[in-house]
Amino acid sequence: MLRVGIGGGSGYSGVELIQILLRHPEVEITFLSSERYAGDPVEVLFPHLRSLIDVRFSKLEDVSQTDLDVLFLALPHGEAMRLVPQLDNIPLIIDLSGDFRIPAPEVFEQYYGFAHTAMEQQKGFIYGLTEINRDQLRGARRISNPGCFATATILALYPLYRKAWVDGPVYVDSKTGSSGAGRSPSATTHHPRRTQSLFPYKPFSHQHIPEIEQLLDRAENRLIFQPHSAPFVRGIFASHYMQLIEPKTAEEVRALYQEIYSQSPFIRIVPGCPDLSCIQHSNFVDIGVATDDRHLIVWSTLDNLQKGAAGQAVQNMNVACGFEETLGLTASPAFP
Amino acid sequence: MLRVGIGGGSGYSGVELIQILLRHPEVEITFLSSERYAGDPVEVLFPHLRSLIDVRFSKLEDVSQTDLDVLFLALPHGEAMRLVPQLDNIPLIIDLSGDFRIPAPEVFEQYYGFAHTAMEQQKGFIYGLTEINRDQLRGARRISNPGCFATATILALYPLYRKAWVDGPVYVDSKTGSSGAGRSPSATTHHPRRTQSLFPYKPFSHQHIPEIEQLLDRAENRLIFQPHSAPFVRGIFASHYMQLIEPKTAEEVRALYQEIYSQSPFIRIVPGCPDLSCIQHSNFVDIGVATDDRHLIVWSTLDNLQKGAAGQAVQNMNVACGFEETLGLTASPAFP
Amino acid sequence: MLRVGIGGGSGYSGVELIQILLRHPEVEITFLSSERYAGDPVEVLFPHLRSLIDVRFSKLEDVSQTDLDVLFLALPHGEAMRLVPQLDNIPLIIDLSGDFRIPAPEVFEQYYGFAHTAMEQQKGFIYGLTEINRDQLRGARRISNPGCFATATILALYPLYRKAWVDGPVYVDSKTGSSGAGRSPSATTHHPRRTQSLFPYKPFSHQHIPEIEQLLDRAENRLIFQPHSAPFVRGIFASHYMQLIEPKTAEEVRALYQEIYSQSPFIRIVPGCPDLSCIQHSNFVDIGVATDDRHLIVWSTLDNLQKGAAGQAVQNMNVACGFEETLGLTASPAFP
Amino acid sequence: MLRVGIGGGSGYSGVELIQILLRHPEVEITFLSSERYAGDPVEVLFPHLRSLIDVRFSKLEDVSQTDLDVLFLALPHGEAMRLVPQLDNIPLIIDLSGDFRIPAPEVFEQYYGFAHTAMEQQKGFIYGLTEINRDQLRGARRISNPGCFATATILALYPLYRKAWVDGPVYVDSKTGSSGAGRSPSATTHHPRRTQSLFPYKPFSHQHIPEIEQLLDRAENRLIFQPHSAPFVRGIFASHYMQLIEPKTAEEVRALYQEIYSQSPFIRIVPGCPDLSCIQHSNFVDIGVATDDRHLIVWSTLDNLQKGAAGQAVQNMNVACGFEETLGLTASPAFP
Repeated sequence: MLRVGIGGGSGYSGVELIQILLRHPEVEITFLSSERYAGDPVEVLFPHLRSLIDVRFSKLEDVSQTDLDVLFLALPHGEAMRLVPQLDNIPLIIDLSGDFRIPAPEVFEQYYGFAHTAMEQQKGFIYGLTEINRDQLRGARRISNPGCFATATILALYPLYRKAWVDGPVYVDSKTGSSGAGRSPSATTHHPRRTQSLFPYKPFSHQHIPEIEQLLDRAENRLIFQPHSAPFVRGIFASHYMQLIEPKTAEEVRALYQEIYSQSPFIRIVPGCPDLSCIQHSNFVDIGVATDDRHLIVWSTLDNLQKGAAGQAVQNMNVACGFEETLGLTASPAFP
Repeated sequence: MLRVGIGGGSGYSGVELIQILLRHPEVEITFLSSERYAGDPVEVLFPHLRSLIDVRFSKLEDVSQTDLDVLFLALPHGEAMRLVPQLDNIPLIIDLSGDFRIPAPEVFEQYYGFAHTAMEQQKGFIYGLTEINRDQLRGARRISNPGCFATATILALYPLYRKAWVDGPVYVDSKTGSSGAGRSPSATTHHPRRTQSLFPYKPFSHQHIPEIEQLLDRAENRLIFQPHSAPFVRGIFASHYMQLIEPKTAEEVRALYQEIYSQSPFIRIVPGCPDLSCIQHSNFVDIGVATDDRHLIVWSTLDNLQKGAAGQAVQNMNVACGFEETLGLTASPAFP
Repeated sequence: MLRVGIGGGSGYSGVELIQILLRHPEVEITFLSSERYAGDPVEVLFPHLRSLIDVRFSKLEDVSQTDLDVLFLALPHGEAMRLVPQLDNIPLIIDLSGDFRIPAPEVFEQYYGFAHTAMEQQKGFIYGLTEINRDQLRGARRISNPGCFATATILALYPLYRKAWVDGPVYVDSKTGSSGAGRSPSATTHHPRRTQSLFPYKPFSHQHIPEIEQLLDRAENRLIFQPHSAPFVRGIFASHYMQLIEPKTAEEVRALYQEIYSQSPFIRIVPGCPDLSCIQHSNFVDIGVATDDRHLIVWSTLDNLQKGAAGQAVQNMNVACGFEETLGLTASPAFP
Repeated sequence: MLRVGIGGGSGYSGVELIQILLRHPEVEITFLSSERYAGDPVEVLFPHLRSLIDVRFSKLEDVSQTDLDVLFLALPHGEAMRLVPQLDNIPLIIDLSGDFRIPAPEVFEQYYGFAHTAMEQQKGFIYGLTEINRDQLRGARRISNPGCFATATILALYPLYRKAWVDGPVYVDSKTGSSGAGRSPSATTHHPRRTQSLFPYKPFSHQHIPEIEQLLDRAENRLIFQPHSAPFVRGIFASHYMQLIEPKTAEEVRALYQEIYSQSPFIRIVPGCPDLSCIQHSNFVDIGVATDDRHLIVWSTLDNLQKGAAGQAVQNMNVACGFEETLGLTASPAFP
């Protein structure tokens, strides 16, 4: 059994990691951090976990005295970069924040609003979009887990970019649930306002844009990414609009995706239109397409806390440690 | 046109007052307070009101230099008692907080957690449950607007108490929407948690209990009041359980209510079971009953921001000022 | 007082018409049809309207014996075309279905799936997108009320097309609430499935496409329209993506819209990003824009039952009858 | 591996059974029935299960030619009683409908509205409220799975009845989610109506009343049961109000429950107030209490599709077959 710790166990990515790892046959959670709840049992903060786990929260600083095989970091942006340089002795660290996703310090600062302080360590991180970087992830020691929007859009566009099928700009209209904003209440996640609402935010400036662009980098295809806050709790539904260089039928496009993702158990190419409610609480990414002569729409949908965060992190741990890629992640989507 | 001000125009009761008063033909809003938004036009905080009102927020302290006919106070508990003693020149003040509802200072302190500092002024306030105290409200100068739960339960039980039909304890299971918690985000109104949730709170200790008991005061009928937070935005649905001294049919009970509320345009006695979705965004209270030999269930439902707060406040203004009781309050419930 | 009838008073557009017309000072509802509820008072079907209206439902065929000044038809597609030829004596008919929106019979048949049978009458209808066709609507006798998606997208793009600012294709990602599907329950509006869901439908084939294209008809700008079902009840949020021929700032684009819509009281050009929750239960259309050198995003949002159906129908009646355009439509959006 | 079949695999209890059994290490699903989808793979109806199961739906009548170790019946009331007499060869049948819960034919007919036709077989069924009847369930061949409301209320009251602590009537105010109405759309589960609604139904007449009364049968304690439809998808939240014969503290009541349920891994006695969102997608029942001298409130909450249906059915299979009681049921509640 691997001894696994979670730095930032009190946020939504942290609790999703707990929920997944409790089902994982090869690991044991031995460390969870929360500054505010240090010393308390998990159910003080997460009463739904009563009787399921008896680890108490620790202070994050105590991680260095803890003997861990794997450490997941689910901290606010900027904290992992302070911590990682001190944790050389931990064999595998998987960071879920944006801290180690961007190799260019000036791009990082532009999108995150503060200077990067651990660029040396950044070079040691593999970008953990499992389906794209699976080979590099085997045996990796430092993994930077992708952003939720980035995962949805990279997986939706990667086959088309690899084949250079797209002509001109690609417009991405992405809709996210309220859990994407995390566990801290705010005006835009206040139930009276959010529950019958929908609104865009951060036009032309979301911090997942550089992540997407570094994997999808054709000068001919400018990518316009626009996120929207929608009134569901879990999930991302991303709609991608573009022109094709050559006309293709939906069948031809699906065949391309089937081929490229033939070894990827979490990618499902679906006939017709995907539905957010088919992937919630699972690690699946459902992808669908529609075409009309030269125009193509690609839809991708995933659970932002699973494939968009904790699920992909565990998938990456599985690949890095040589486990079956789906271990602990085989639960069906929860419907209704 | 009466010049009307709202102290605390930035909360949910405040904005509901704005929305109602904009439809009222005899008043004009000339003062709105918000400490944080003082100087800003209303749409900075409430963009849905853009183009509908061009008053700017003021600081609350400026109310004393403003020439007003009516002042609504929609402030946090404890603030109106500090302000009212300085506002003798304002002809009509309607306070929506709990500050002037309870004449016994020790009861106030027990339920609100701090000492009352304006008990002298409290004596000048009429408890504004319009249907019960309508005659006292005509020409009133100081009105204490009831709590939302208190309004739902007093109106549901008042006919039975007046006739002394009830035997033993009365159990009240009341469910409220998230807007009842106000405009400030908190853990229990965070969308990811609230939207598929339901939970009780404050057992045996909610601050509306003494309001209810001072109108419904039969020693034989102990009242057990239990509020629950439910995952809708607007409304209260209150279920009242009790035994009857004498068996009654549902028809007999409804006939009693019809008689007692025959002059009350906002009370609707409905056949069958009432439905929260029939009263939202209106000032109606829908009441229904069911009986089985000696047992009686009475249901009441209202919109917590309308009849439970701003709507009843305007209804009280209408009665106090000699307007038609329904003026500005005739909009139909908004369905769906 | 105009005598007003509603054919199809039992659907969501019908009940929204009732709710609006009850606030309209110049009309009286004297006829409502429902085949199933003929003979019943309105509250049998719509208990929220108890005490507000005492008209009973009639059979639709009885409309010909009723003396009406205005008839709104809120019937399923295909029924108005059978009825209108027999109702020459009614001075003003406003049809909310798709029956009279499309002058080309082959286009109608392609999108609606059945042949048109009243093309002669169709020529007498004005397309009631008030802001665009206001002059033609004054004194009109037959008005075809636009589709909800068409209203949102035409108003969002019309200024750009009039000035020919757009280069190449325009992609429209539109999200609609569940009330858009009408009052009949179905699999996609079943609460357990819909409430945490989002999914596209009818790719490249929605019946509002020809409506949009007949007003926005530049060969250079192919329009790709994609609707999505989202988990709110009321509203449409439409996002429009395109390239500009010449770079423009957001301020320049907003100035254009302000100019073109300067006489349109229901269009609000907002700074920043619009929010669905700012227009619900009102007749407003909120429009916002964002630019990045050559790319432009335009957002429009409206209430599908108000500006997208019943509200615009009343607005058109006001213009046709010479009333103030906003009469009966001045209620503020209902928030929260 | 046991060969398991599900009669009625196309409803919500059926699909929940599939989702649970896919996680169960000792069984294999080899039969699923759906009259409408017979011949189709599961993902035609349940696209969220794509790639997880490759059984096709069969007609129910084919069950008799299938070699099964366990058959779950998740059919509409009235169908199991026609089927069961023909299935003597199946070692274990667990029926989730109301057909075999009530031994008195006249009581059955009163509450279900039609005559029972298999009373002989009924005698062979054990009432599968696991925590109460665990000993009888070991090795059982025919199990009648309890109703969701009955499970919540029996577990909440059983310790008090066993100790005879309660004085006089017990009032049960129970709130259920929309999934309780099943997969067929109807007016009361139509998203536009349900999503901001709450309403009682079936006063004094719900069919789970006799189930409750046959386990909780003290003449001194008349039980008044009132269900409400609430706007969440999953779960039951039941509030129980009563008087105590002797005053008890909350601690004393909780100690009683801890003792009685000490061998029941799915019952959690919680401090403070339980929360529906702590049990969703799990087989837990969370129970909390509050007291005030002589009055007692007991709250119980469970997932209607898990402990209220499919989860308890699998729990009963585990007990009947000699597996660990929690096998396949250890997934944590899914939060948020």
